Amino acid sequence: MNRKMIASILARLIVLEALLLLAPAAVSLYFGEDCLPFVWVAGGCALLGLIGMRFLPKNQTIYTKDGFFVVGLVWILWSAIGALPFVISGAIPDYVDAYFETASGFTTTGSSILTEIESLPKGMLFWRSFTHWIGGMGVLVFIIAIVPLAQGRSMYLMKAEMPGPAADKLVPKTGNTAKILYMIYIALTLALFILLLCGGMPVFDSAVNAFATAGTGGFSVKNTGIAAYGSPYAEWVIAVFMFLFGINFNLYYLMLLRRFKDAFRNEELWMYLIIVAASITFITINISNIYANVSDSVRYASFQVGAIISSTGFSTADFIQWPNQSQLVLFLLMFMGACAGSTGGGLKVVRLLLTCKLIRRDLRKIARPREVSCIRMDGKVVEEETLSGIKTYVIVYFAIIFGSFILLMFEGKDVVTTFTSVVTCFNNIGPGLGSIVGPAGNFSTWSAFAKIVLSLDMLLGRLEIFSILLLFMPSLWRKKVL
Amino acid sequence: MNRKMIASILARLIVLEALLLLAPAAVSLYFGEDCLPFVWVAGGCALLGLIGMRFLPKNQTIYTKDGFFVVGLVWILWSAIGALPFVISGAIPDYVDAYFETASGFTTTGSSILTEIESLPKGMLFWRSFTHWIGGMGVLVFIIAIVPLAQGRSMYLMKAEMPGPAADKLVPKTGNTAKILYMIYIALTLALFILLLCGGMPVFDSAVNAFATAGTGGFSVKNTGIAAYGSPYAEWVIAVFMFLFGINFNLYYLMLLRRFKDAFRNEELWMYLIIVAASITFITINISNIYANVSDSVRYASFQVGAIISSTGFSTADFIQWPNQSQLVLFLLMFMGACAGSTGGGLKVVRLLLTCKLIRRDLRKIARPREVSCIRMDGKVVEEETLSGIKTYVIVYFAIIFGSFILLMFEGKDVVTTFTSVVTCFNNIGPGLGSIVGPAGNFSTWSAFAKIVLSLDMLLGRLEIFSILLLFMPSLWRKKVL
Repeated sequence: MNRKMIASILARLIVLEALLLLAPAAVSLYFGEDCLPFVWVAGGCALLGLIGMRFLPKNQTIYTKDGFFVVGLVWILWSAIGALPFVISGAIPDYVDAYFETASGFTTTGSSILTEIESLPKGMLFWRSFTHWIGGMGVLVFIIAIVPLAQGRSMYLMKAEMPGPAADKLVPKTGNTAKILYMIYIALTLALFILLLCGGMPVFDSAVNAFATAGTGGFSVKNTGIAAYGSPYAEWVIAVFMFLFGINFNLYYLMLLRRFKDAFRNEELWMYLIIVAASITFITINISNIYANVSDSVRYASFQVGAIISSTGFSTADFIQWPNQSQLVLFLLMFMGACAGSTGGGLKVVRLLLTCKLIRRDLRKIARPREVSCIRMDGKVVEEETLSGIKTYVIVYFAIIFGSFILLMFEGKDVVTTFTSVVTCFNNIGPGLGSIVGPAGNFSTWSAFAKIVLSLDMLLGRLEIFSILLLFMPSLWRKKVL
Repeated sequence: MNRKMIASILARLIVLEALLLLAPAAVSLYFGEDCLPFVWVAGGCALLGLIGMRFLPKNQTIYTKDGFFVVGLVWILWSAIGALPFVISGAIPDYVDAYFETASGFTTTGSSILTEIESLPKGMLFWRSFTHWIGGMGVLVFIIAIVPLAQGRSMYLMKAEMPGPAADKLVPKTGNTAKILYMIYIALTLALFILLLCGGMPVFDSAVNAFATAGTGGFSVKNTGIAAYGSPYAEWVIAVFMFLFGINFNLYYLMLLRRFKDAFRNEELWMYLIIVAASITFITINISNIYANVSDSVRYASFQVGAIISSTGFSTADFIQWPNQSQLVLFLLMFMGACAGSTGGGLKVVRLLLTCKLIRRDLRKIARPREVSCIRMDGKVVEEETLSGIKTYVIVYFAIIFGSFILLMFEGKDVVTTFTSVVTCFNNIGPGLGSIVGPAGNFSTWSAFAKIVLSLDMLLGRLEIFSILLLFMPSLWRKKVL
């Protein structure tokens, strides 16, 4: 373990956060609000980070483990720092609440402890939504796009932060891959921003909603969410973009290169589309007698399916009023999640697909032990090691949900609230089911302990478990290099 | 696939059930009740079976797959036949109800659709409890103990029916292993029967309760369960025997051979004991203010922990009145289950232990990809293939719970009732949580569809999933031998 190099990278990342904090400071200034909370925190971070950066270690090699550690630590640290402006300004006086809100922002969860959103200063609202956008593509992918962190080892960092079982390199150099991903991300966000503006949404609202959609976060600046704008146009635009941000970004790159055939051979994409289409159809029929006309039902169903499967977590309807069957479908979509390599959360469609193939294969193997068969994905054979890794991931995934559920059950809330709070935080979605944490509710009634557990769940979910979990294995903290 | 041989084995097993049906017929006769329902069914089965047995195929070889198929089919068939006397006698007029009750008996689940138990004829009550005892050790283990079914291939059958990831052969010949296991089973059942008699329990009640305890079933002949006897002595005796029947029978054999060192080196046993001790301590403290004195709290806690972890499902207290924390512990124990090679159900302690070791190993491997480490159990290295099989098992196990839960949610019952109904049936325990299916409730309010799903869950649970699941894979029904 190269502790000095880890510290040095962390110092640089703190400076980066200081720079990012200047954006909400500028917004505060523009709206004539107090920008000092942002300036103070930014200044402090910059000072600390710059001092840390002066000590550049001689040995700059980092190993796999170090990569995971850096990623886990920086996400915990960024949330801890990002929470400070909320506390200093008094917008969210309690630090645990502020930490929950910031972690919810960076991890693109979108669960909130705020009971009244609209009274917050614009600068604070901007920072809250901006964290979604930064967290969506990844803190480290961002810095890798700008400066190389460690010679030839950046892939380790990106691997740990990218959603999905395998981070593909689009181009030979990791830095360039990160750059391409960010370009696509920025282009899509910009397109959404302009489309929202065209529909008559105010500039500030268009920007923050574009951030929250692009990062598949889900923080809203209105108490009633996207429904507050009363614009079916805006709802459709956001619905479509939620689907788009749930697709593997590599496919957009392939399409830019006009390799459409390769892009559409992607099995995960097809399964994602099938699941989305089936869910929308089912829910539309199921809720048709609640709404006045079919177009409303289709819009509400599409919006909600998009919001849940992409793990954005926006809502235009209070879906806990929908029939149980529709709620059940949404509950299932919470686990599924979006495609690997997107900004979405959850288990990811590709893992589900591979797990199904695996179970089928393993069942056949039990009946016919002498049969040899490999599993293919997009026409290529998947290595047994990857498959074994996915099995472990699925087990750990459910173990964490189960464990967090048990911890939270001691708070004495009902089972549905407790379970869906864990599921929605861990899968980085936002709202749960039940009246307390449903789309019209919030997470303020949980205790400080529960909020810490849920914050950890959000981080575990966003970083696909291992970066955070490995931090809790004391045996890995030893210096021995391996 | 050797279809003729499968049919031939099934024919023999039907004759065996006909013979077993003579026991409740005799009980009916003794109590002056109508024994004809049993006699008719036994006669019909004997006739059918004997005709089938006349066609002995030339090729008597059976393969792994055939073994699973025989086991899956015979359990479905035995439940179907065993349900007939209930319907013919009018004790349970509805066939689906009777099937649920019989499957619950053979699989040693103990969930009941009866709302009033004591009004049933003694013969019916005896048959109900007797199915527990037969199902506890296994239908096929029984016949293997008496006659060899197929030359040198009996192990395939036993493997498919024995609980736990690996069926050990105690002695070189499978038939002898089965004999030894049944001897231990009979001896323990007899000891329990005598101890209950000594405590003043009526002969009939001592017998049926001994059957239900030995098979870790849980059917009671009283509406209020074991509490009806008002005997702390009986409660303690049954509590201790529930623990004993949850231990791997191989250990008893080792102890008979005076190989105590080998027996006590068993890691699973220690984990089982630790979990039991910790659960009893926790619940005793948690419920201490409900009961008048500590000895009552200890007894209730011990009895309930034993009943749930061994998957017997008896109850002396209505534990849904206990604090949430105690119910949560019981809920967790429902998943855990007893030791492999016992008559108990659930995931089994050894699988839990190995899964924990696996996760730990795989996490370290992620951080240190070049490290090679194997997993040991009882001092021996566990093969990677076994480990991979356990991972698949755990995933399929939770997938079945999840899938059944979704199917049953459409019935519109509350989440706790629905979820614990599935968990308790699938793990072959008996009572669930909530007022509907709790220890004071029953399963009569579920629809016929739900009862079929839950019956399937019981069979899936008892046969450790694969024997039943493979029946649903059409591609395996083809004749091709492999």
